[in-house]
Amino acid sequence: MSKKIITITRQYGSGGREIGEQLAKSLGIEFYDNKLLDLAAESSGIHRNHFEENDEKRTNSFLYLLSTTYGQGGVPFDDTLFFAQHNAIRKIASEHSCVIMGRCADYALRDFNNVINVFVSAPLEYRVKRAVEVYGIEQKHAENYVKRIDKQRISYYNYYTDKRWGQPQNYQLCVDSSVLGIDGSVKLIEDLVKMYYKD
Amino acid sequence: MSKKIITITRQYGSGGREIGEQLAKSLGIEFYDNKLLDLAAESSGIHRNHFEENDEKRTNSFLYLLSTTYGQGGVPFDDTLFFAQHNAIRKIASEHSCVIMGRCADYALRDFNNVINVFVSAPLEYRVKRAVEVYGIEQKHAENYVKRIDKQRISYYNYYTDKRWGQPQNYQLCVDSSVLGIDGSVKLIEDLVKMYYKD
Repeated sequence: MSKKIITITRQYGSGGREIGEQLAKSLGIEFYDNKLLDLAAESSGIHRNHFEENDEKRTNSFLYLLSTTYGQGGVPFDDTLFFAQHNAIRKIASEHSCVIMGRCADYALRDFNNVINVFVSAPLEYRVKRAVEVYGIEQKHAENYVKRIDKQRISYYNYYTDKRWGQPQNYQLCVDSSVLGIDGSVKLIEDLVKMYYKD
Repeated sequence: MSKKIITITRQYGSGGREIGEQLAKSLGIEFYDNKLLDLAAESSGIHRNHFEENDEKRTNSFLYLLSTTYGQGGVPFDDTLFFAQHNAIRKIASEHSCVIMGRCADYALRDFNNVINVFVSAPLEYRVKRAVEVYGIEQKHAENYVKRIDKQRISYYNYYTDKRWGQPQNYQLCVDSSVLGIDGSVKLIEDLVKMYYKD
């Protein structure tokens, strides 16, 4: 069986995580979401809390930038965290089949062959509804919350890569999860994966 | 059987037309590409040549704009052509299942229920290769030609709609045709269509 590497970039509330998790289960391969933070922490020796606090977001505060602490080799600390994750992603993908959620994994693996990059989106109202019903976000704050998380992820991706987040040319497949729901979207991505890897 | 309406927006050279044609054949429904021009000509009484000359492109020349001839009701002539096509698309989609290629069909049908909008892309080098091998474009001009046609289509779409061409949120599925080729891409879109329309 050929090694299968699937990265999933997702709009917040689109169900991308659930889709990735089910896809990995269905394909019988490893799933990496928060587990990536453990691996990056372990290999870098930096406490996991730092990865969690800075997960897929950049600190834009001017005061923060003025007071930025520098990490290994004079590199700003959040860049150190990014590169630790980046290396963890490359290590995983060089070892075994997996589904990797977010964290610029498509960019980290840009020179790997046979990677399938998927973008999962959905209309804003669908994502807001899911944020309330599935993630328990308060109704009155839900729309702003969804938009804020997206904005953080977009800013993080665009800062660390030479690509623009959510442009179809970065992905082999973009799917609107509201059309087929979680199960149908998993099925569709699985169809692509099976046809592509031919086994 | 429920009515199936699929619009396909495509980057030039991605094989979108072939994919649309095969998809329509496989689903046993009508395929509209240049045939749309016939219908628009017929219903508007404007000669087909005008539709062909202005197909999915806008005339940006300053001299042209100065000399613009006005059509029905004082509307610039290229707008008249656009609206004739727009109406032809809406008429077709209200009557029967079909696959419609380009021509802002996703926008023309934005208030229709149950339309699947697909975007077909592929890396530039793949499209240039196909332009030479499949469409017989001269190698030395092929890259510029591919880029020019895309630019025309983008400009046309962005002018006539309130959306941006090629943004994933406009489509239920975006597929890179270089991953699975024509047949595989048809199969994938067909999977989506069958799951969505549930028959």
